[in-house]
Amino acid sequence: MPRKYDTQEGCPIAGTLDIIGDRWTILILRDLTLERSGKFKDLQASLRGISPNLLASRLKRLEAAGVLERSFYSQHPPRAAYQLTEKGEGLRDVVREMARWGAKYQLDDQQRADFVEAVGEGVIGPA
Amino acid sequence: MPRKYDTQEGCPIAGTLDIIGDRWTILILRDLTLERSGKFKDLQASLRGISPNLLASRLKRLEAAGVLERSFYSQHPPRAAYQLTEKGEGLRDVVREMARWGAKYQLDDQQRADFVEAVGEGVIGPA
Repeated sequence: MPRKYDTQEGCPIAGTLDIIGDRWTILILRDLTLERSGKFKDLQASLRGISPNLLASRLKRLEAAGVLERSFYSQHPPRAAYQLTEKGEGLRDVVREMARWGAKYQLDDQQRADFVEAVGEGVIGPA
Repeated sequence: MPRKYDTQEGCPIAGTLDIIGDRWTILILRDLTLERSGKFKDLQASLRGISPNLLASRLKRLEAAGVLERSFYSQHPPRAAYQLTEKGEGLRDVVREMARWGAKYQLDDQQRADFVEAVGEGVIGPA
């Protein structure tokens, strides 16, 4: 079947996946989207099980892609924090749609209520 | 930092990623969302590089999760096709937001025009 787009090039979804196509990366974007705490140590605590090296490499890739930018809130010792760029802000809607679907199909009532209490109703809307 | 949700449970985004958190799976959803051709052989042709075994396992997982359902359009030899369930239809918006972002940031003008020509303007909206 001939197609005008394909997996390799010209497909905007594949292009997006080139940047955010792994679980850790989307969880990083989740934290920056929901809480705006972009401190390295907070991300590491939130993404349980991620190694510092892997987190650093994912952050570096997102920075290189222009999705987030790094600043330092302490110089001695150096402590980095990350925030979404304007380009990265555009990924909020991807995270939001994932949250809506997950809240509807993957959470029970109590989990949904806890999530809304934690981050507000804006993310997933009323049940 | 205490949180009411975390990576492991209670987070709707992590819950969504449990189902669609890999590249091939999202490309399968892309094809079912954009073209509605759910024939195994068409999916295999579209997802260049995927092995039949891997495609079958991804489809089986999505079927088990209630995201898509299988039917047979030929019995001899058996030929399967897949379509989104109502639950799976809910993932269209995830795919759509990925397409919008990718069209804006990852494609050039010609690629964007080709994509719109192929699937219509409804997916990514006007430039």
